[in-house]
Amino acid sequence: MTANAIIARKRDGFALNPEEIQSLISAYVQGTIPDYQMSAWLMAVYLRGMDARETATLTQAFLDSGARLDLGDIPGRKIDKHSTGGVGDKVSLILAPLMAAVGVRVPMISGRSLGHTGGTLDKLEAIPGFRTDLSPQAFHDQVADLGVAMIGQTDDLVPADKKIYALRDSTATIDSIPLITASILSKKLAEDLDGLVMDIKCGRGAFMREMSQAEALAHSILRTAALHRLPAVAVITDMDQPLGYAVGNWLEVREVLQSLQGHGPEDLMQVTYALGAQMLQLAGYKGTAQQAMSQLQKAIISGAALQRFERMVAAQGGETRVLRDPGSYPGARLQQHFRAPRSGFVTEIDALRIGEAVIRLGGGRMTKADRIDPATGVILGKKRGDEVSKGEVLAIIHASQPAAASAALELVRKAFVIATQPAPLRRTILKIMRE
Amino acid sequence: MTANAIIARKRDGFALNPEEIQSLISAYVQGTIPDYQMSAWLMAVYLRGMDARETATLTQAFLDSGARLDLGDIPGRKIDKHSTGGVGDKVSLILAPLMAAVGVRVPMISGRSLGHTGGTLDKLEAIPGFRTDLSPQAFHDQVADLGVAMIGQTDDLVPADKKIYALRDSTATIDSIPLITASILSKKLAEDLDGLVMDIKCGRGAFMREMSQAEALAHSILRTAALHRLPAVAVITDMDQPLGYAVGNWLEVREVLQSLQGHGPEDLMQVTYALGAQMLQLAGYKGTAQQAMSQLQKAIISGAALQRFERMVAAQGGETRVLRDPGSYPGARLQQHFRAPRSGFVTEIDALRIGEAVIRLGGGRMTKADRIDPATGVILGKKRGDEVSKGEVLAIIHASQPAAASAALELVRKAFVIATQPAPLRRTILKIMRE
Repeated sequence: MTANAIIARKRDGFALNPEEIQSLISAYVQGTIPDYQMSAWLMAVYLRGMDARETATLTQAFLDSGARLDLGDIPGRKIDKHSTGGVGDKVSLILAPLMAAVGVRVPMISGRSLGHTGGTLDKLEAIPGFRTDLSPQAFHDQVADLGVAMIGQTDDLVPADKKIYALRDSTATIDSIPLITASILSKKLAEDLDGLVMDIKCGRGAFMREMSQAEALAHSILRTAALHRLPAVAVITDMDQPLGYAVGNWLEVREVLQSLQGHGPEDLMQVTYALGAQMLQLAGYKGTAQQAMSQLQKAIISGAALQRFERMVAAQGGETRVLRDPGSYPGARLQQHFRAPRSGFVTEIDALRIGEAVIRLGGGRMTKADRIDPATGVILGKKRGDEVSKGEVLAIIHASQPAAASAALELVRKAFVIATQPAPLRRTILKIMRE
Repeated sequence: MTANAIIARKRDGFALNPEEIQSLISAYVQGTIPDYQMSAWLMAVYLRGMDARETATLTQAFLDSGARLDLGDIPGRKIDKHSTGGVGDKVSLILAPLMAAVGVRVPMISGRSLGHTGGTLDKLEAIPGFRTDLSPQAFHDQVADLGVAMIGQTDDLVPADKKIYALRDSTATIDSIPLITASILSKKLAEDLDGLVMDIKCGRGAFMREMSQAEALAHSILRTAALHRLPAVAVITDMDQPLGYAVGNWLEVREVLQSLQGHGPEDLMQVTYALGAQMLQLAGYKGTAQQAMSQLQKAIISGAALQRFERMVAAQGGETRVLRDPGSYPGARLQQHFRAPRSGFVTEIDALRIGEAVIRLGGGRMTKADRIDPATGVILGKKRGDEVSKGEVLAIIHASQPAAASAALELVRKAFVIATQPAPLRRTILKIMRE
């Protein structure tokens, strides 16, 4: 069957058979199908969708395009957590060492910031010397020795996704549920996992703005994972306001340290514990989710999680001195305060605008080539639901350039809504879903 | 606005504004937008459609991409006929000189065969020496002197359509009504016409298989033509069975000669006269369509149309000797008869299968690079509705190679349906539409 005929079948709304999907993807990766045919097919998939079987086959075709890790000789269950991306989402940096501290193996492959959402790799690399480019063997050995390693996507894992993602990015075919599902799950399946917890962010600062979209993505990921026999749980969490108080790479590492020291913001710790409890259960823990969370809290209070974080940083070449003395880190040159223009209650902090403010400060990327300025960002002084008096600090902008500070201040100003009455409280953990 | 944003807007079903459409097309023609973005946009247009205003703007953007003919100094109205393509459709070769013979100027730019449908240029070029590549000036002068010229698309007319058509051809985005409309009308508007008659073929051997599709295309073309102030009429005609008896380039020229001599097949002449009457009225003729048809019949009977055809062939370098003595033409080496396997009534002659048979014989093209063998083809012995006795000749296959003859015979066999009872007669002229 020709590429043209496969495009036409998807265009006309038919479900493609495995041979069609596999031959299309493998021919594209080999370069025998040009970009312009693949992009027409991607648009047809975007508009016509894919059923569960097609999505599972696409995931397999992505997976088959490259190498896979083999962690089979490491005892214990290997469980990963993946987030669809948000603003201030530093959960992985707390959760991965925390889970290792309670005996779960966490072989975590993360991404970089793009657009208004942050990236775990950029946050880790804010720590001087931290290397995210371990070889597969070094990654394997660190997971075996320390229980946790956090690295970036390597070139030989799932090259099909890399090539197709770049094409989707310039053809308005990013936010398609089957394409997102195959992209995420192929990379997770390549990690040789025994279980996956998905954090599906929902709200203004997330990819999925509506609960119905978040649920649809959760369903698709859970069904596809089940077809690949990967035990999985999806947790839908709030991303209307930023998670925690810090947004910006080094500022978030500081908040991670505070959290590992037992002083984490409430919403951030709720998400961390909720995801961690699911990971623990996937790893074989027989107690309730509530009991699992208590275990995790103990590992924070005892300092075991912080210690594991420090050992991981050291193992991956990062300076641990700066973790013990964050004040020694060369912070941003300018700090500009945004103060409450009137008294009242904070009813909204638009995560998208805060994320955009951080991009303007140089703390995020608009294109893959942009360099990150890790010291910049925004520290919120208040969160949704807080009462404020006129003149109180709502946010502190950490900037390198005055012009960027002014632009960011304007976005932060627009992000805050101060009302005379408090708004009904919204939950942080919106839904937990299983296949 | 970026190409990505324009693709996203069409993907989401919005009507694009003129600036968006014009900037996209002009950037694509200039090469600043890559094929893969254009093909994603074309698929979004295919699946989301375009409204009348968008289609008219796209037509204008195509038109603006190249040069336009200027026939303004030629007195009289310039009227063209365009067909969506069929099997055995040699109407242009009869109609263009016929209209010139009754005083209408016909500046006709035609296409080549592709797939199972024939092409006027290939039929003309079956006449030894006939040139379809006149310069714009020579074309202009011949229309002024003789009232008719028939050429192929030049490189400088509507380059946007040429580039986009090639992309559509390999991305399953050919049969989209707004894209077809812009492709056809931009080329016709570039001819500097005063009126256009569209022959929209409908049935198995046509692009539009269903009446509803044919009507939708007719509506789109008529509305877009009206927005461009081009008077136009659409005639929907039957293409379930081939038009006339001859299919194949030189065989069709022979049937054209017979038709110009007053011995044309009934269905072929019905289509020719129906289209011609509309052309005559668009040229200012005040009588009824019936009266217009009588005028045209007279120009056939008098020999004026045949004479005009011969003068046109001579003017464009073709040998007229072969027109007067068709027997001198080097015909196909093999002639294979297909005889009725039983007695009964012919209820179907599948035009698509006959067209495919002619491709197998070398009389058509699967790809643009294929060379045409002009002597090959199929001559039908019977048409739909005819009664046949077992053993009567249903078709004669004209072939150069025995293997091709066998393959064609198999397709011709499948094309014919012989039933014990006659089927209800179908009309040849299905509908005449105006904006």
